[in-house]
Amino acid sequence: MHTLQQSIDAIRPPDAAIHTAALQRLADQARPQSSLGILEPVSARLAAIAGTLDVRLRNKVIVTCAGDHGVVAEGVSLFPQEVTAQMVYNFVAGGASVSVLAAHAGASVRVADLGVSYDFDPELPIFHKKVGKGTANFARRPAMSREQAIRSVEAGIEIVDQLVAEGRVDLLGTGDMGIGNTTASSAIIAAFSGLEVGKLTGRGTGIDDAALARKVGVIERGLALHMPNPDDPLDVLAKVGGFEIGGLAGLVIGAAAHRLPVVCDGLIATAGALVACELAPQVKPYLFAGHHSVEIGHRHMLERLGTTPLLDLQFRLGEGTGAAMAMHLLDAATRILADIKTFAEVGIANAQKQ
Amino acid sequence: MHTLQQSIDAIRPPDAAIHTAALQRLADQARPQSSLGILEPVSARLAAIAGTLDVRLRNKVIVTCAGDHGVVAEGVSLFPQEVTAQMVYNFVAGGASVSVLAAHAGASVRVADLGVSYDFDPELPIFHKKVGKGTANFARRPAMSREQAIRSVEAGIEIVDQLVAEGRVDLLGTGDMGIGNTTASSAIIAAFSGLEVGKLTGRGTGIDDAALARKVGVIERGLALHMPNPDDPLDVLAKVGGFEIGGLAGLVIGAAAHRLPVVCDGLIATAGALVACELAPQVKPYLFAGHHSVEIGHRHMLERLGTTPLLDLQFRLGEGTGAAMAMHLLDAATRILADIKTFAEVGIANAQKQ
Repeated sequence: MHTLQQSIDAIRPPDAAIHTAALQRLADQARPQSSLGILEPVSARLAAIAGTLDVRLRNKVIVTCAGDHGVVAEGVSLFPQEVTAQMVYNFVAGGASVSVLAAHAGASVRVADLGVSYDFDPELPIFHKKVGKGTANFARRPAMSREQAIRSVEAGIEIVDQLVAEGRVDLLGTGDMGIGNTTASSAIIAAFSGLEVGKLTGRGTGIDDAALARKVGVIERGLALHMPNPDDPLDVLAKVGGFEIGGLAGLVIGAAAHRLPVVCDGLIATAGALVACELAPQVKPYLFAGHHSVEIGHRHMLERLGTTPLLDLQFRLGEGTGAAMAMHLLDAATRILADIKTFAEVGIANAQKQ
Repeated sequence: MHTLQQSIDAIRPPDAAIHTAALQRLADQARPQSSLGILEPVSARLAAIAGTLDVRLRNKVIVTCAGDHGVVAEGVSLFPQEVTAQMVYNFVAGGASVSVLAAHAGASVRVADLGVSYDFDPELPIFHKKVGKGTANFARRPAMSREQAIRSVEAGIEIVDQLVAEGRVDLLGTGDMGIGNTTASSAIIAAFSGLEVGKLTGRGTGIDDAALARKVGVIERGLALHMPNPDDPLDVLAKVGGFEIGGLAGLVIGAAAHRLPVVCDGLIATAGALVACELAPQVKPYLFAGHHSVEIGHRHMLERLGTTPLLDLQFRLGEGTGAAMAMHLLDAATRILADIKTFAEVGIANAQKQ
């Protein structure tokens, strides 16, 4: 079991020599230069992470972190809080959206309770990492204490430690479940970026104009009340974040510490990834953005991360669905690098080299 | 063996009742409304084509149509014409980009010679459908006769007939190989749209500014010389098209006639799909655009088709690589419809219905 600082200290950069060799092989392949677009840098990065040009992402795991949010008391969501726990059961039963798309991606889904406001049976096959039974309503009080923020991030790290100890993970995906968590995620990007809340806040599960205006007001109130320090990511997480968002940050840090590629989902998972990158920028080479969410705040997170998402499917669902869809692309990226022949290998003249 | 007109006459619309039932099931699923973005209409369309809510795209085939282009004499491509035939051998050997990405998609690649300027061994395991040994240089003469244009489209139809007779296709993908064929494809969209050639013409395999200016001039000259009639798609195909582009049109018509979904690749395959849609608009419900190519003319083709591509990976390769990547999404679309549980099935209150 690693502490946050131990895991951050353990992060090493990917293999630069393999990265260079990968780019060279891609350039030598029997096809026009850069013709496989965004898959090319992705494949080079995966090779550098794995330390080989023939990467095999055999074991894929999506960890869906669940938590509840006191801020739902302000009427910011379309669904009642009970749905978070109900969906945890739906994930375990395999009937949810992420269950279906993960199965299609050849990935398993592991659910983690970081802070659902419900007492699960200890026998339920999930990671039991409850930091609290839902956060406090950040419109009135900080969402959690600083100690709880650290605890939630370390819980995410522990989950990766456990998956690695089980020997069952070559690629990690991150996903979320938590009624109210688009509100916390928009607050996080607002706190880090200083941008106007109204420009960062979307409709979540589909709220109307009145609820959207309320949601913007609630976030503005919370930020004005607690004044989270953007240079202190744990302060931001504690004051306006969520337990599952801390867990999602920990998954990214844990993955980087174990030299594992990690692909994050949409708004909430990326909020967690953002907290991780603000805490430890050295995780970035290990992080892939799965897709571009419809949620407006997401693009600002991606800009801040300086990363291009793999897909734009107009999803706005969470759970890890976008991460699941992106896994096929990551696999494809490993195959183009290893399997497409070079001009020399197939005996065709390379026009670019003439 | 079907003629062009017989195949067009055989096209029936997909099942409207199944389409409605699919949209209803998607709306009832335990997730926010429309939260799976572009996969939702795709899944409903696939259901309507298959006539069932539980679609299984077991057998996937990408047909890569190859042909040569007399217009390469004008210096419009970076690669010499010989590469077309060399790449056909590379496809057969399984070392090309489409070979790798098709294998990853669980698809087989079948190569078709529609008009390569090379005599292949009749034993080579490809569809031998040569209409001519390369088109004429359309900067000086029409690329082919009207009879050859019809012959190339019917060759594509025959290929689908044969795949269906073999009982080996649930999803068809289309791809291309042909040095010089971005020039023909840009000319085709210019002829249909009437838009300025300079705005529709890209760098193909990666030509420089001087070659790009030459390419634009060549297309403008060809269009001015032959004045293809935009209301007569076979006239457009004959005057500035290509044998493989005719074949690609035939694949789309054949797929629709056999009630098969067909996903097209980038600029060249979409030029073929466009010719098909101009000949027989009733093919459109069967057609999916796999990805958005970097080539500028592609977006104008997609606009004219009124279709949204599934992916934007910044590919500019052809061969069927974008179609291969999209197959995973089409499969995913079939799974979300059949496998994600409804609110009623999992016993969770649907906020939208309250």
